[in-house]
This record gives sequence, C-alpha cells and structure tokens, in this order.
Amino acid sequence: MDFAHDERTRELADRLRGFMAEHVHPAEEALARGEADPGPEWGPPPLLADLRAEARRRGLWNLFLPGEHGAGLTTLQYAPLAEITGRSPRLAPAALNCAAPDTGNMEILALAGTEDQRRRWLAPLLDARIRSAFAMTEPDVGSSDATNIATTVERVGAEYVVNGRKWFVSGALSPECELLIVLGRTSEDGPARERHSMVLVPTGTPGVTVRRGMSQFGYSDDDHGGHAEILFEDVRVPVANLLGEPGSGFAIAQARLGPGRVHHCMRLLGMAERAVELACARAATRTTFGRRLADQGVVREWVAESRVRIDQCRLLVLRAAWRMDREGNRAARDEIQGIKIAVPRAVEWVVDRAVQIHGAAGVSQDLPLARFWAIARSLRIADGPDEVHLRSLGRREIERQLAALA
Amino acid sequence: MDFAHDERTRELADRLRGFMAEHVHPAEEALARGEADPGPEWGPPPLLADLRAEARRRGLWNLFLPGEHGAGLTTLQYAPLAEITGRSPRLAPAALNCAAPDTGNMEILALAGTEDQRRRWLAPLLDARIRSAFAMTEPDVGSSDATNIATTVERVGAEYVVNGRKWFVSGALSPECELLIVLGRTSEDGPARERHSMVLVPTGTPGVTVRRGMSQFGYSDDDHGGHAEILFEDVRVPVANLLGEPGSGFAIAQARLGPGRVHHCMRLLGMAERAVELACARAATRTTFGRRLADQGVVREWVAESRVRIDQCRLLVLRAAWRMDREGNRAARDEIQGIKIAVPRAVEWVVDRAVQIHGAAGVSQDLPLARFWAIARSLRIADGPDEVHLRSLGRREIERQLAALA
Amino acid sequence: MDFAHDERTRELADRLRGFMAEHVHPAEEALARGEADPGPEWGPPPLLADLRAEARRRGLWNLFLPGEHGAGLTTLQYAPLAEITGRSPRLAPAALNCAAPDTGNMEILALAGTEDQRRRWLAPLLDARIRSAFAMTEPDVGSSDATNIATTVERVGAEYVVNGRKWFVSGALSPECELLIVLGRTSEDGPARERHSMVLVPTGTPGVTVRRGMSQFGYSDDDHGGHAEILFEDVRVPVANLLGEPGSGFAIAQARLGPGRVHHCMRLLGMAERAVELACARAATRTTFGRRLADQGVVREWVAESRVRIDQCRLLVLRAAWRMDREGNRAARDEIQGIKIAVPRAVEWVVDRAVQIHGAAGVSQDLPLARFWAIARSLRIADGPDEVHLRSLGRREIERQLAALA
Amino acid sequence: MDFAHDERTRELADRLRGFMAEHVHPAEEALARGEADPGPEWGPPPLLADLRAEARRRGLWNLFLPGEHGAGLTTLQYAPLAEITGRSPRLAPAALNCAAPDTGNMEILALAGTEDQRRRWLAPLLDARIRSAFAMTEPDVGSSDATNIATTVERVGAEYVVNGRKWFVSGALSPECELLIVLGRTSEDGPARERHSMVLVPTGTPGVTVRRGMSQFGYSDDDHGGHAEILFEDVRVPVANLLGEPGSGFAIAQARLGPGRVHHCMRLLGMAERAVELACARAATRTTFGRRLADQGVVREWVAESRVRIDQCRLLVLRAAWRMDREGNRAARDEIQGIKIAVPRAVEWVVDRAVQIHGAAGVSQDLPLARFWAIARSLRIADGPDEVHLRSLGRREIERQLAALA
Repeated sequence: MDFAHDERTRELADRLRGFMAEHVHPAEEALARGEADPGPEWGPPPLLADLRAEARRRGLWNLFLPGEHGAGLTTLQYAPLAEITGRSPRLAPAALNCAAPDTGNMEILALAGTEDQRRRWLAPLLDARIRSAFAMTEPDVGSSDATNIATTVERVGAEYVVNGRKWFVSGALSPECELLIVLGRTSEDGPARERHSMVLVPTGTPGVTVRRGMSQFGYSDDDHGGHAEILFEDVRVPVANLLGEPGSGFAIAQARLGPGRVHHCMRLLGMAERAVELACARAATRTTFGRRLADQGVVREWVAESRVRIDQCRLLVLRAAWRMDREGNRAARDEIQGIKIAVPRAVEWVVDRAVQIHGAAGVSQDLPLARFWAIARSLRIADGPDEVHLRSLGRREIERQLAALA
Repeated sequence: MDFAHDERTRELADRLRGFMAEHVHPAEEALARGEADPGPEWGPPPLLADLRAEARRRGLWNLFLPGEHGAGLTTLQYAPLAEITGRSPRLAPAALNCAAPDTGNMEILALAGTEDQRRRWLAPLLDARIRSAFAMTEPDVGSSDATNIATTVERVGAEYVVNGRKWFVSGALSPECELLIVLGRTSEDGPARERHSMVLVPTGTPGVTVRRGMSQFGYSDDDHGGHAEILFEDVRVPVANLLGEPGSGFAIAQARLGPGRVHHCMRLLGMAERAVELACARAATRTTFGRRLADQGVVREWVAESRVRIDQCRLLVLRAAWRMDREGNRAARDEIQGIKIAVPRAVEWVVDRAVQIHGAAGVSQDLPLARFWAIARSLRIADGPDEVHLRSLGRREIERQLAALA
Repeated sequence: MDFAHDERTRELADRLRGFMAEHVHPAEEALARGEADPGPEWGPPPLLADLRAEARRRGLWNLFLPGEHGAGLTTLQYAPLAEITGRSPRLAPAALNCAAPDTGNMEILALAGTEDQRRRWLAPLLDARIRSAFAMTEPDVGSSDATNIATTVERVGAEYVVNGRKWFVSGALSPECELLIVLGRTSEDGPARERHSMVLVPTGTPGVTVRRGMSQFGYSDDDHGGHAEILFEDVRVPVANLLGEPGSGFAIAQARLGPGRVHHCMRLLGMAERAVELACARAATRTTFGRRLADQGVVREWVAESRVRIDQCRLLVLRAAWRMDREGNRAARDEIQGIKIAVPRAVEWVVDRAVQIHGAAGVSQDLPLARFWAIARSLRIADGPDEVHLRSLGRREIERQLAALA
Repeated sequence: MDFAHDERTRELADRLRGFMAEHVHPAEEALARGEADPGPEWGPPPLLADLRAEARRRGLWNLFLPGEHGAGLTTLQYAPLAEITGRSPRLAPAALNCAAPDTGNMEILALAGTEDQRRRWLAPLLDARIRSAFAMTEPDVGSSDATNIATTVERVGAEYVVNGRKWFVSGALSPECELLIVLGRTSEDGPARERHSMVLVPTGTPGVTVRRGMSQFGYSDDDHGGHAEILFEDVRVPVANLLGEPGSGFAIAQARLGPGRVHHCMRLLGMAERAVELACARAATRTTFGRRLADQGVVREWVAESRVRIDQCRLLVLRAAWRMDREGNRAARDEIQGIKIAVPRAVEWVVDRAVQIHGAAGVSQDLPLARFWAIARSLRIADGPDEVHLRSLGRREIERQLAALA
C-alpha cells in the first residue's frame, strides 16, 4: 500500500493550487458578494467560461478521466487533485471539466459507448461544449433498492420508448444540458439485476418534460442546472441510443459508481479541510467571555478531532483508490462501500463543528459552510442511503469471517 | 409538579387542532404546491390574512400573552398550544399572532413599555396591523457573549443616536414591519451587564438601511420578513423611545428569553411529532429489498428512540414552564437553560432520522422536514450557542454541588 | 400528571437520607477500606445484619412492596426512595430489604402465590431470614427472545421435573439463598407465550448444581450471592410448587418486570447523582495546566449535560410510575419500555464522564464509579437488550401513528 | 506513504499466527476454563514459561526492540506483529517478551542507560529472567499534567533519596519484578519540563512499600503483576542509578511513549479484530424472533461500522509508524497523538458492540470481550486522558493553520 504522491501528481497539485488561488477563489468571492453576473436561470455564471479557458491553458483539463480520452491519470493520482477542487465545489470542478454528473457520464460513454455515441456525445462533453445528466432516482419507488426502478424502456420496432418519472436529475435544468442518460426497465424477465438498461435521450426529444428543480436543504444548485424532476411520456429514441447491451444497466452503473465515489469523497475532504481552515481563522480572532475561541478547550477538541477524522478518511479513500487501480473496481468493492459510509458522515461532523464555531455567520450565505453541510448530508442519501451500504458491507463481512473460521 | 392539562387548555387544544386541520394544513399545502399567491417580496402570503381572521373568530388569538393584554394563559397552559402550532411553523404561529419575534416584543412592551409606547406599538402588534423586529446580534463581535455588543445608543440632548451594524434581525425585511427594538451600548461605565439599553426605532427612520436578508442553510424565510442585515448610521429617536430604564437592556432581554425559550422548544417538539408522523407513514408504504421500511429493525429503532427523546424533552419543558409560573423566570433559570440545551439537539436528531427515512424526498421542498431541520439546527446557535449554555449551567451545577457538600 | 412528592414520601425520604448518612455510607467506606469483616464466601458482610436491624427500627423496611404485605407505598411514592438507595447499591437496598431479585420474587409470591407458598416463602423473605433467586436466562439460547427458553418443567405424576441450564441467576450463590424461582417450558403446544411456567425450587433439592459465579466486567458481586450458573438435572418438586397457573410463566414475569424496571431505573439515577457529586468534588480540587478542572469548559459541559440527562430520565421514570399507579402496568407498557431504553444508557454516559474526570482513580476500587458503570452497562443487556425494546417500542409507535392517520 | 508489509514482516506474521494457533490460544482457553495452574499470587501462570521457550525457539523474541539489542525491526515492521499479539493480550505479548511496561523500560535502558545499567538490568529483561515496572502516576496530583508530579528524588551525597507515593505501577506486584523505574522531581528550578529525572530502584530497596493492587473496572490483572500502589519513604539508591542526565526525565519518557503508543494501538486493533470475529460467529448461530442475528439490520450495521472503524484506525497507526521510522518520533508527534486519541475510542466502540451481540455471555468471563473493553477504556486515561491530547493536538493544528494563512 503505497499512497505517496508521485512526481506527476505533485506537479499537477501545485499547478492546481495556483489556479485556485489566482482564479477560482477570487471568482467565488465575486459570486458570493453578488458582483459577478449570475448568468441565465439554472445556467452557469458567465465567469465559468473564463475559468474553463484558463484551466485548459494550464493543462488542468479532464483530469478525472483515465485512458486515452482524458488526462490518463490513475484514480490514486487524481484523488488529491479532486480534493483540492472540493475546496470550491461550486466552481472548481466545473472549471476543470471534472464535475459530476458529467464525469460519470463521460466515463461510461468512454467505456461502453459505440464509436458513434462517443463522437456524438463524448467529444462535446470532453470539450465542455455541452452538459449531460443522469436520470436514475424515481419519486414513486424506494430507489435505494435499485431493482425497484420502474421507468420502462420498451423496445418497439427500431426504437426504445421511455415512460416514467425521474427526479433529482442533477444538471438537467441547465440550458447547456443536451443529453439525458436514463436508466429504465427493458425486460420483465431474468435476474432482477439484469432487467435494466441505459438509453441516451437528447433533452429536446418530444415527451420529455422538465417539470421543476428539487432543492436540497434549501439549496437549488441553480448555477449547476439544479436537480430536475422529469416526466418521460412515450419518449422515443432510436435503438442505436442504447448504451451497451440490453440488461447491462446496473453493470454500467456500477462501473460509474466506483471512481465517482472516490471523487465525491475526496471533494468532501477538500470541503472539510477548508472548513477547518475557516474555523481556525475564526477561532483565532473571536473573543467571548475574555478568551479567544482558539484558547477554549471545547474548540480545541473539535479542531483536533476534525484533523484526526479527516486524516483517517483520506487514508481510507486513498487505499480504495490504490486498490481500484491495482485490482479493478470490482475487487475494491468493500473499500468503495467503506468510503461511501465513512466519509460523508465524518465531513458532515467536521463542517457542523465549523458552523458552530462561526455562530450565525456559519449558517449564512457569507460562508460556504452551510452549503458544504448540505452537500455532505445529501450524499448520505444519494447513491444509496448509509443504511443500505452498512447492511450490505456487514453482510459480506459476516460471510467472510465465517468463511475464515470454517 | 403537576403537568396535566387543565380544562381550559384541553378545550383550546381541541379548538386549535380543528383550526389546523381545516385551515392551516390546507393553506400550507397550497403554498407548497405553488397554488397560492406567494405575496410581496419578503412579505406574508395573502392567505395569511384569512387565517388570522379565522383564528380570531375562533378565539385563538394572542394565546402566548399572559396578563390583561393577551389571552391570560399561564406558560404551562400555553405550552401545549405552542406545540401544536409548531406542526406548521410557516403559518400557524403567525395565524394566531403568536410568532417570534413579535411575541417577545409584545411581552417586553407589555412589561416595560410606557403607556404611550404601548398605545403606539403594542396595540397594533396585538392586532397584527404591524410587525416588529428585534435587533441584537452583530456580525462584528462574538455576540454569544452579549456584553460584546458594540452598537452605540448615545444620548445627545433629547435624542438617542444609534450607530452600528446588526444582522439576523428576523422579520425586518417584511413590508409590514414598522418597529425595530434595538439593543445597544448606552454607557461605557458600570457593571458589564448594565451598560446596554433598548430603544424603539421606527423602520423608516433616516439612517436605517436594511441591506439584505441572511439565509439559514439555504432558507431565506422570505415569507416572514427574512433575517435582515441592518446598518444604523446616526439614527436619531426621541428619548421617549427608550424602553425601560437606561442600562436595563439585558434585564429586559432576559425577561424576554424565558417564555420565548419555552415557546421555541414546544414548537420544535411539534415539528418533531410531525416528523415522526411523516416518517411512520412513509415507512409503512415504502418497500426495499423485499421488506417494508416499517419492518426493518433500524427504522423501528429510530422511531422508538424518537418517541423516547420527544417525551423526555416535553416533560423537561413542562417542568420549566410549571416552575416559571410558580416561582418566576429567574428561579427557573436552570430549567430554562436545560431546555435550551436539550430540545433543539433532540429535535435535530429526530428530524434528521425522518429525513433519512424519506430519502431524496426528505431533503427536498416536497416535505417540511429539511426546513424543520434548518430551524432546529439554527436554534442551537440563536440565543447563544449550546456551548455557552452548557458551560454556564455546568458552572452553576458545580457550585451547587459544592455548596451541598460543604 | 402530578409527580410531586406527597407528605409521606417526603417524610420517608428525609428519614432514609438520615439512615444513609449515619449508617450506610460509613459501612460502605469500612467495607471499601477493607476494615469490615467481609463475611462468608458469596455471602453478605456481617455488618449488613446491623444495617437491617437499624432500618427496621427506623421504619424503612419493605418499602418497595405495595399492598398489605409491605409498606403499602405506590410506585410513585417508592420511586424517590429507590433513587436514594441507589447511591449505595451494594448495601442500601439490601439493608432495607428492597434488593433485587428478592423484591421481584416477593412481588410475584404476593401476587400469584398460594397461601401455603406465601407462608413458606414470602414470610421469611419479608423478614429477610432467607434470600431467593430467579432463574430465567439460559446460556444455550438467545434469551432476549424469551420464547426461546428451553429448560423443561415436565409434569410427571404429582411432581414437576426440571431439566436445563440457567445462568446469571443473581443471588443464588449466597449461603442465605433458599429458594429458586425457575422459568421453564411446561408445554409444547398452544401460543408461544403460554407454554412456560414458574416453579419454586428449594436450593437444596437433589439435582440442583450451582456450578460457578458469572462475572460482569470483572465484578463477581460476591457479597450479593453472585450470578450463578446452575444445572438442573431431573430436579423434582411437588406440583404444589407451581406458581400460578400452568402456562402463566410469562404473564407473571411481566407483572414482575414493571415495578422492577422502575426500581432499577431509579437506583441507577441515584448512582448517576452520586457520580455527579463525586465528579464535582473532584473537579473543584484538581488542577492541571494551571486551571482547576472545574474551570475547564469541557468538564463544565459534561456536568451540565449530566444534569440535563438525569433530570430528563427522572421525569420519564416518574411519569411511568404515575401511569402504572393509575392505569396498571399493562397500560403503562410503552412508558416502562421507554425507561428501560433511556435510563441505563444515560446513566452509563454520566458515570463514564465521572470516571474520566477522576482519571486513574475513576477506574479503581477506591471509588464506586467503575462498579456503577458495570451495573448500568449490564442493565442494557439484562431483562432484554436495548435493541429488543427499541424494536418493540418502534413497532407499536408505527402502528399507533398509522391508526391515528387512518 | 508505503504501508505494505515487506517480506520479513510477512514471514514473521505467518510464523506468529502459527504460534498463536498452536500454543497461545490453547493455553488461553486452559486458563479461562481453570484447567491450568494459575501460578503464584500476582505472578504469571507457569504455562507462560513454556510459551516463552517456544517463542524463542521460533525466533519470535524481542520483536518490539529495534537496533542491536532486539530483533531490529522498524516500527512499521513490528506493528502488524503487535496487532496479532493483541488477539490474546493476557499471554501473547508476555510470551514474546513484548509486553508493556517491560518493552518501554527496555527501550529507555537501551537508549539512555549506561553500559553498567544495561548489563545489570537490560540483559536480564531481554532474557525475561526478571520483570520491571514504571512508576509515574501519582494519586495525589492531577498526573495528566505531568509537571504536577510531586515525588522527590533528592541528591544527598552519593545517593538519590526518593520520597513519594505512586500508583498504577503495572507489573510491580509480580514476584518476578526486580526493577522500578521511578520518575520524580530532582530540581525546583529551571523550565517546568526539565525538573524531573528517572532513577532505577531495585524492588527490594529499604523504604519501598508495595501497598496493594489497584483494579481497573473489576480487573486486577493479577497474572501480570497487577497495578501497584507503592510508597517510597527515604528510599536511597546510588547516583549511578540515575537514568540519563539530571532533568531528562520527561525527554526520556517522551522517547518511551512514541513506540509504546503504536504498540498499544496495534494490540487494541488485534482485540477489535478478535471481537468482530467472535461477534460474527455468534451472530451466525443465534436466532431471536425468528431470524438469525446475522440477518438483522442492526447487527449488520454494527459489523460494517466495526470493519470501517478498524480499517481507518489501522491506516492511521501505520502512517504514524511509517513517519516515526523515517523522520523520528519527534517529527511524528501529531500522528502519535492522533492515534492515542482515535484508536482506544474506536476499539471501545467495536468491543462494546461485540459485547451487546453476545448478551450476558459478553459481559462474563467466558469470553475475553469484557476484559478487552476494560483495557480499551482504561487506555483512554492512561498516558494522559483523551482530553489532554485533544486539546494539545487542537492547539497545534490551530497554530499550523494560522501559520499557513499568514
């Protein structure tokens, strides 16, 4: 287990930190102060275009994507870079073309897309000329059990016909969004996990109705295309729009999840680090009852515990990334599930303590903390709630222990 | 310690539940679905006027206020009614003219106001013809130590001149808001807790600039007048606008806090009860991995623990109310601090579990849960963060134990 | 809900506090310092006889037992007295003849015993001439599901024949113990909860082998007769030794549990109060890093939170007692389960913090804290582990909520 | 950061696992069942001598000690071996001559001892011909602030005269213990952390009175020489018995602590792993309410969370060991403090859940779990309570953050 940063990672991290300091943080503050043009409804602020251009110029582009189509970094190499972008989650990932859900969508297009699909969708996504969304969760069923997914993708002649209701389709309200990847049921027979498939649905296809944006703890994420509720009524796409094989929906989704979880977790750790930084700065300057907050035992305990929790989580994520690179996502399944469980909870705690150290400012729009909290908390539900992962990991651990004892 | 509801409380509670079912919940749903007129920016939705009229008609008006000016209930009698209103915090308290911060402001006007001040401000507040705000917290100092408050209220001839910056002035952005009660420093001498006073500042007074609304975890509370940042620059009011004696600011604030904390806590418990109700309904209808959520051990544990925590908190609040009624707010100081510590944390936990049971719906605007959470979490900071109260209560407990051992 | 102490309770509490101060605490210290005669193996120290005589003289005898056979107090009247005895759990309950498991055994003999059984067993127990034990838990099955209990009590002619293995039979190693009340399966048919019965087995009956004492976190409770493992091999008792009806085992056990849980919980709160008292005394006298522990924020927070948790628990227990007295144990089922869940956990936390404040002394035999901790922790398993109660209470809460919504 | 096990570690770990399976676990069970000779009061069971001989034969001897005197392993190499010994903490560390406090004592003798001191004490310790103890904690002062230590070590002519009272001197009651290393105050002047020194005091020296053994949650650790309270009254040793320089007491203690904390933490993780193993085996075989424990959601969650917590802790400890090896103990100060904070708490939690899964058996002597719990809990106090480490780490983190921002 060697988690040390190699030369390339170190060089990219330095470059990225420079970009953050010189471009991203100033832009973030201009946005927060209301000085920057907020842009079209649900769309990105115009300053994002400049940030993207600068990131490309600096060679900080598509870093998330291994292989020929992207920067070619391993998961372990990209992880520390994802952490740095997490310090400014509204702008940095998008500026580097490394923002979810486009990253996952590009991954599966690179992985499972036909040449035609890649030309039509992957190329412009890699160029940030268009954005995409991923339609999986449904309001009408308990989607934490993915086999419940009820949207139908029925083959009729040379077309697939999509019917159903999806929500929390992140990014779909953006005027830049041109592609929806939809997971739906293509078969009523066979094993429960082989009945679903993914189809590529252009946003303008007749029958697609984007109804509204869903909020997360009061945040609409309007500058990222929000989280849409979408109605699919007899939506027809050519069979060539199927991604991969019929029935391969969950298999592709799984491939999408592994790296995505590492990215999410590392970005969360970036938020946690920034929260600690903000908390320490605040604690050093505020005085109550005759003592600086920084000199109060309770505050010191929070800061210490934050440091320990962050360090534990980072090591856990790096171990998962290291194993994914060496043995593949499937072999690292337990490690991936472990970070999905551990990291959002730890970061939620760290950010909550930073909020508390800030008092009223902490819950307000003047600091990114309340938003960080909402992101961390929501990630304990997205991609399957904590409980599903705990039960699944626990079941496998019990099986493994029993096998070892037998 | 007799916490049983007496006849009058039982009768009012029944009447209030009827009003909630027939008027408040339907209005709440109309608002949530976007079918009701949202009203002016930062102001209440027009349907609130109808609710107020109906509440008056039903004798459900000013229930919070003891004594001749209000309904004359004791704290213990009002507590269960406050809990019921907490089930719909956006509408019910306002519909009954029992919403903070107006309640606290009416209390101190009734308590410390001159006859003239009461005629000018209390009467229209009791009638809900105007709204008011309370300007205490400041962005530039650690306000959890109230002696830090730096806004100056300087006597110059026959006027007081106010200079300073306040924020989280709840309700001040409402077009209905006509009165700001401002806490500021009137003296540089004397004991630290006798240097501040309260002055009544009409919202239109020159030098008052309402800059913006502060959000709490993404919620602006725009239909309650928000939480304003306000600049006071050489704001002049006649000396007759002083509330009580010079230097009595903290003493009056203290009087305001006791009942206010009982109200806040009981409303929070109403939110918690509603959260449990929603969670149970959801758990009974959702199925994942072949079992209803209601049949899963983890969900049952959450529901059971929610029940126990709520019951413990309610008993604690009722004990505080009972003691306040019998021995006065000062004697019940420890009990009041105890509920300030215990209740928001417990309710935050209960609501968080209800969110988790709902999955994505729980964080969204389709249910009141995420908003409930933000209210509970913010109350762990408002009126002094948990830590200030824990330390203060701990100090007195240690002193009491040592005195008993001596 | 009126939880106030009435005149009789107040008078008895005063009397009991005098007894504790003048007799129990000095005896406890003599024992702890090794100055008192430790008595026979597994039996009580000789000084207990003097304490018992003094308690009787002061009218502090059999206070736990309602009705004609005991002091005739209600559960609510006895509860505060049980709390006081909890401050010295090794001596005070036994000194007042109010120690488990004898109390529960006397209750069920009073309730379900024949006149003959009462004469033979209840009378000497009320007089503290003998001790008794209750054999329920079994090592070979998951006893938290009581229907698993596998010991057989088979009717053969005019006798019952007992076969099985029990453990954690508290008190059974004492030389004073003359009666074992054994729960076993008397039928293989009928509803699962009506197949078990209780029989009275004199300790000397052939076939009864007391194998060893079980420890709880290193404590053998040797001066209370320990916690025995007992083998029953073809143990024969006359049919007249059946307690109540055949198949009534669980019904009687249930009757035994209600008051017992109130007693356990109140005694635990007495331990918690003593832990806080000790912690405050320590915090006031120890200095580290230039400050008294009592002046450190973390310690103050622990003390404050201890106070709030204890108060919440006490109110919850009093509510349960109040309801049991008014509506019976069955009606108060949820309340009883609520305290079984809430109190041991809270007391464990409070005692753990007191241990931490004391450092090394806290874990040692010089203070009662480590023992208190072991008692509280073990009570989260005894009488059914937390999880069983949480699930059961949660299930009923969900049912009640759904019924209310229907 | 490369934490992978190298060839030598892998080979030793395999060998050690064989030794555990073939010798240690059988011996442990014989002891627990009372079949083995328990040995002299406070001394080791006779079977330990055989285990030691076998361990030497297998080349599993003094593995903890780097450098020429020991096996020469790095901290990172030894760490996984220490974890394995933690699975049987009563026997395995002693069998390998790797048990505290002898390990720390050997380390400081190797590091700071004169040639004469090493010949006289280190050689027989390395051979396990004698045992030693470390007398630091005092009952009369808050020893968590080590500068409080009040025992005096006064130079009088050619001798040092020791006066004071120590307790929790682990191992000192053993008949094999021949050496006490005593930390005391040698100077009243100079910096607070340079006033103390260590002296070597043979156990038989006049004026040394071993008064009694202190227990930890009911455990006396009688087969390891217990935890003694010792009185030093005018105890005289030659000046040649000073360890290192006058005033170097804390510096040497610090050197002792670093590796000791890694060892403690890794052994704790071994206990945690064994607890999980036992819990899974139990969960697979017990059925309550119609389902195996292993199939209940709550149990699966506990097992999963145990796995994640253990893995996080192990990575954290390995990182600390890795840094100690590369940059020295001083440079790894924060990492060492981090593991001291994180590991005992996590292991306490894991073991507590394993206890709960076992029900009554879990708290009893039939399983090692209750003892594991007491070890983990006591380590949150030994070597400085959690709070001291949290505050110290928090202070340095705040300083580092501010330096980075400046």
